Amino acid sequence: MATIEAVSPFAPERFPDLPAVKGVRLAAGAAGVRYTGRDDVMLAEIAPGASVAGVFTTSRTRAAPVLLCQRNLAGRGAASAVGPSCFVVNAGNANAFTGAGGMEGAERMAGAAAHAVGADPRDAFPASTGVIGEPLPVARIEAAMGALAESLAPGAWEPAARAIMTTDTFPKGAGATLTLDGVDVAIAGFAKGSGMIAPDMATMLAFVFTDAAVAQPLLQAWLAEATETTFNAITVDSDTSTSDTLMLAATGASGMAPIESAEDRRGAPFRDALRAVLLDLAHQVVQDGEGASKFCAVTVTGAESDRAAKRIALAIANSPLVKTALAGEDPNWGRIVMAVGKSGEAADRDRLSIRFGDILVAEKGWVAESYREADGAAYMKRAELEIAVDVGVGAGEATVWTCDLTHAYVSINADYRS
Amino acid sequence: MATIEAVSPFAPERFPDLPAVKGVRLAAGAAGVRYTGRDDVMLAEIAPGASVAGVFTTSRTRAAPVLLCQRNLAGRGAASAVGPSCFVVNAGNANAFTGAGGMEGAERMAGAAAHAVGADPRDAFPASTGVIGEPLPVARIEAAMGALAESLAPGAWEPAARAIMTTDTFPKGAGATLTLDGVDVAIAGFAKGSGMIAPDMATMLAFVFTDAAVAQPLLQAWLAEATETTFNAITVDSDTSTSDTLMLAATGASGMAPIESAEDRRGAPFRDALRAVLLDLAHQVVQDGEGASKFCAVTVTGAESDRAAKRIALAIANSPLVKTALAGEDPNWGRIVMAVGKSGEAADRDRLSIRFGDILVAEKGWVAESYREADGAAYMKRAELEIAVDVGVGAGEATVWTCDLTHAYVSINADYRS
Repeated sequence: MATIEAVSPFAPERFPDLPAVKGVRLAAGAAGVRYTGRDDVMLAEIAPGASVAGVFTTSRTRAAPVLLCQRNLAGRGAASAVGPSCFVVNAGNANAFTGAGGMEGAERMAGAAAHAVGADPRDAFPASTGVIGEPLPVARIEAAMGALAESLAPGAWEPAARAIMTTDTFPKGAGATLTLDGVDVAIAGFAKGSGMIAPDMATMLAFVFTDAAVAQPLLQAWLAEATETTFNAITVDSDTSTSDTLMLAATGASGMAPIESAEDRRGAPFRDALRAVLLDLAHQVVQDGEGASKFCAVTVTGAESDRAAKRIALAIANSPLVKTALAGEDPNWGRIVMAVGKSGEAADRDRLSIRFGDILVAEKGWVAESYREADGAAYMKRAELEIAVDVGVGAGEATVWTCDLTHAYVSINADYRS
Repeated sequence: MATIEAVSPFAPERFPDLPAVKGVRLAAGAAGVRYTGRDDVMLAEIAPGASVAGVFTTSRTRAAPVLLCQRNLAGRGAASAVGPSCFVVNAGNANAFTGAGGMEGAERMAGAAAHAVGADPRDAFPASTGVIGEPLPVARIEAAMGALAESLAPGAWEPAARAIMTTDTFPKGAGATLTLDGVDVAIAGFAKGSGMIAPDMATMLAFVFTDAAVAQPLLQAWLAEATETTFNAITVDSDTSTSDTLMLAATGASGMAPIESAEDRRGAPFRDALRAVLLDLAHQVVQDGEGASKFCAVTVTGAESDRAAKRIALAIANSPLVKTALAGEDPNWGRIVMAVGKSGEAADRDRLSIRFGDILVAEKGWVAESYREADGAAYMKRAELEIAVDVGVGAGEATVWTCDLTHAYVSINADYRS
């Protein structure tokens, strides 16, 4: 039996200092959805007139709160909210695969949050994470909402991040500040998720806020674009949650003139800062992956297209044989060749090269002349690893991040019955 | 640390009694490719005039022997061989990702086998399984070939099956007999593979023989068709070998008039018997899967098409979370809902139903009213399991077979360094 570490070896010593985001107040509280003795509900109040964007799981069996968020976003369209908006999240119950009652529960949860902050219910975005297939005890969430609204405070990032954890081993936050034409702008957010770290527990959730002023269509497009190379470029176990949700609110409260065109030259620095925050949060999700002892970047170059490169990178990053080799600190490059081959994307076997960090492992369809197994073995002992593969057919490239597959993963998911 | 069983719990008490196949002689011997003290080379001599068909890995990094088999099959085209044919196989070295020298090794190995049985080298089909990335010590195989040819014997199924094992825990054989218009016909074969059961060990190989007389284009078409629902419907860990090879030889030595048309009414019973042999061998590969303690059939019905059903079934069968739930005997149907959702295929969440054996677990988008968790938990204690999912949108169906993901899988692939 493997020992399960109480905390990921990648957990930071403490929660990061995050900047205040003007126009955002947060609160956490204990509703007793499933857990006792801890906060399990989070409420974020967003000032009137904000733009809200979201990206969600593509699962065909997605949970009721996801469907409601998508409906509310579509209903709002490109417009900013007239009044306040809010995000409301519970941990302990995913409200997924809960039949027709699922949507009713999500609507009641969103309605209670909207009522608490004086928002139109159509400007309330709910998310739920936890057990699949059990009815949401929504009355407990409704009962907790009044106290939550009273305790709303700017900068309550850490309590909010903790309240949405299921079996994450550390709360995950990230932030950035930048100056746009002399106006100070902040971006900050938090996330939860580590695969499905305990039986029945699922879901990656992330909530990011900025006081920048950005028109909704741009905010949505930039969020979707940045997601592709951040949250959609991580994998713990290749399994897709029914509830994955990433919400972004831009309050505009920094006082900057709104960005309303893709040509606005303030767009580039804002997008860079946004992507940095998303990437930081995404990395923390992998670093808290179930049983993870290695954090590994897989970069593929020379593919037919960026999309092809990502497929190859994910074939490597999801391969159980590659992931067990990482766990075993085994420089098993043959398994990387195998994974490239199974991806189905074009690769020239005789121009393929593989590197571990700076070490050239294979080239020209065979092990590199300069490669020494001892060098590869020494490299694999690191906690943070970089695997680079050039497949020799084009200019496409992509990087994805993964963790290893350990005894602790099996213990977490098999040994403890739900 | 998990204990690794010396032999799969599904291993049969003894190798099956297989029928003689007229026109086929087999031999096994020790060439010392990598192992000592065991046979590691197999030679099959096939009588003049046989039809030969083959299906192979779709990997973009496939091994040299696979490329040579494909070249020889294409060169022969629809014709039967004039002289004898042969299959030659070694264990211990996959001759994969071995640069330009890889093809030379495969050609020399095939040439030595052809010489030993008096065949044209273009009628010799080689296969190699074992370490990736090391040059094949082909001189040892050449040196062993004379003694192998002298010991060729009909019915040497078990020694042949044992000689191609890498870290399989039992030899795998299957056979069938049938009567076609009064002529007795036999089909028999053997396979190896259990995922990549030890570092650097890969490859599923299967060799099947019949004394039926079947024109090559039909043999190839029927083999490809039967593969789709047998060897291409099993998964141990979702990783595709660089060397997967399935060869079928029809000697015609039963004396039957050749089947030369798809309309021949002897075609259906022959195809049924062929599929049964392939399915039996394929099941044995999963039952000898790395660390397997459960053997599970996943059947999906109600999909948009058979292809969609198979994609959904494979999403379930390959999900690490489903597979660890099987290992933990956890009736975790929420993970099955998750896997259906992530497959990307159409499914009606509110018409989805899930069964464990005869137990209705979920229906109408929620847990079934009649379902008791204790019934599901009791069912999961069985060694052989059946999961059935109806996704409620069409008439497509498919069944795939998988095993569980256990501590022993991680031990086999991570704990022992190559």
